[in-house]
Amino acid sequence: MKVIFDTDPGIDDAMALLYLSKLPEIDLLGITTVVGNADLATTTRNALFLRERFGLSAPVVRGAGKTLDGVEKAEPVIVHGVNGLGEIEIPAVDESGLVPGDASQFIIDTLKAHPGEVTIIAVGRMTNLALALRAEPEVAKLAKQVIIMGGAFGYQGRSGNITPAAEANIHGDPVAADEIFAADWPVVVVGLDVTHDIILDTTYLETLSREVGENGALLAQMCEHYARFYKEMMGLSGVVGHDLLAVTYALRPEWFETRRGPVIVVRDGVAVGQTIQMPESRKGGHPDWANRPAQTICTGVDAGKVLEHYRETVGR
Amino acid sequence: MKVIFDTDPGIDDAMALLYLSKLPEIDLLGITTVVGNADLATTTRNALFLRERFGLSAPVVRGAGKTLDGVEKAEPVIVHGVNGLGEIEIPAVDESGLVPGDASQFIIDTLKAHPGEVTIIAVGRMTNLALALRAEPEVAKLAKQVIIMGGAFGYQGRSGNITPAAEANIHGDPVAADEIFAADWPVVVVGLDVTHDIILDTTYLETLSREVGENGALLAQMCEHYARFYKEMMGLSGVVGHDLLAVTYALRPEWFETRRGPVIVVRDGVAVGQTIQMPESRKGGHPDWANRPAQTICTGVDAGKVLEHYRETVGR
Repeated sequence: MKVIFDTDPGIDDAMALLYLSKLPEIDLLGITTVVGNADLATTTRNALFLRERFGLSAPVVRGAGKTLDGVEKAEPVIVHGVNGLGEIEIPAVDESGLVPGDASQFIIDTLKAHPGEVTIIAVGRMTNLALALRAEPEVAKLAKQVIIMGGAFGYQGRSGNITPAAEANIHGDPVAADEIFAADWPVVVVGLDVTHDIILDTTYLETLSREVGENGALLAQMCEHYARFYKEMMGLSGVVGHDLLAVTYALRPEWFETRRGPVIVVRDGVAVGQTIQMPESRKGGHPDWANRPAQTICTGVDAGKVLEHYRETVGR
Repeated sequence: MKVIFDTDPGIDDAMALLYLSKLPEIDLLGITTVVGNADLATTTRNALFLRERFGLSAPVVRGAGKTLDGVEKAEPVIVHGVNGLGEIEIPAVDESGLVPGDASQFIIDTLKAHPGEVTIIAVGRMTNLALALRAEPEVAKLAKQVIIMGGAFGYQGRSGNITPAAEANIHGDPVAADEIFAADWPVVVVGLDVTHDIILDTTYLETLSREVGENGALLAQMCEHYARFYKEMMGLSGVVGHDLLAVTYALRPEWFETRRGPVIVVRDGVAVGQTIQMPESRKGGHPDWANRPAQTICTGVDAGKVLEHYRETVGR
């Protein structure tokens, strides 16, 4: 499976990258970066660091540092830390992993080079994908699928995290997200409805640290910072592995329950960044949704299988 | 328990009125009407008809025929029919049940007459309640509680019905709804998250028709119309008893799971009419929600108990 991983590392992005580094089924063609969990320079530096550290051969391509709505939205530093990776020590990185050019052009070129074969896994703001669509709308038809971590539809009471209405990746660039839902490619939404079931608790992180060698220990170390946020905000003893779950979906869609229907993102007002689906099962339609393609949202997941698969995979 | 029932009959409003007529625990002080399931003249006529038919002694008070947002929104006739009661034959009504004056003033006067004692059960648009608050904001402190049928928070995938974002009562007057959530009285939201569990299926309706005498048969007859809507829109074999569930909450709150936190209603845009709660369990807060009182939303219900209680009660 050919994959472009669009990311803003980010602690859970690091979890996903370690996962990707251990999956022989996945042919990682590129790591594209975007502003989000930290500014673009930081997320790009982190992508290069993690690429080297996890032994990934895919190039890093720098993407968007500003969002399409023109609103500057810094993520709260409490989540991923000032350096985006939980304040671990990050050595000078090997810049040779960074290829010239822009992420959106890289996405266009890669889709054209492998029509119908490429899965885009996007776990940050959707800016790079939307820029690719704006430049060449017809590339949508060339993608195999787009799996995003983002959004929240209220299942299990999982509404927003950055606001009560909105999940952070969508809220970070609601215009971009709305454009990617409107495009004619199959989008799968791995949102808070399911990611909040993927809790790496203290015991689990200790096991990673013990059984997965240096990289497991590194993740566990980043998660000490991340865990303080979840403890303070939600009283959770552990961290949520949002982004890794988008990778799991690429491999094991049968572990997920889903619902189909067109999705709209609220672009402004108090609900800005909220994702709203019209379920396909609901007859009658609604004009605002009717002109959009049906997309897939995840509404349930077998979390036990995911956590076992992750530990087993990164322990290889 | 002293109750004002604010209503726009409506088939499920009729179910609730029959329920109220059989509950000795409830002292029904007034039936206030509002535009919604049909225009105000029709909902008021229907309230008078049902009052007489069910032997209720509480007066009917005419309320708002226009919503606070100034947007005319007729409900689709397919739901409750042109006459609001599923096209059953409605005889000329006894106008003596209608007292002069306006619903919002009646609400104010009644709250003042019984400070701390009155529960308002509102199962239509919230216009009358909001008008009462606008006229005399301090009456909020005099209400025991306000139980509304309205809203949708995504639990069990229950987002909107009138749009994918919004439930019809809130969508019908989002400004009024937003104002009642902001006021300093305890609001309990019985929304689609729970009302869609209250399915009166064909067998249940046959039992009502058989065991509950003429009024059960009347409800079953109205529901023939209502059932066509649910069949067509959702593939359901039966009807949803939305409004009756607000009455159940007044009596048996222990049958419900709830979540506390301030609620905002989206006032315009694609998500107009959507209800968004910031859960109290979520630390950190958000400025748009932070200045509002915590309200209670229902997130789960023991539907079996409710349906049994309803049948047993109306069969008395």
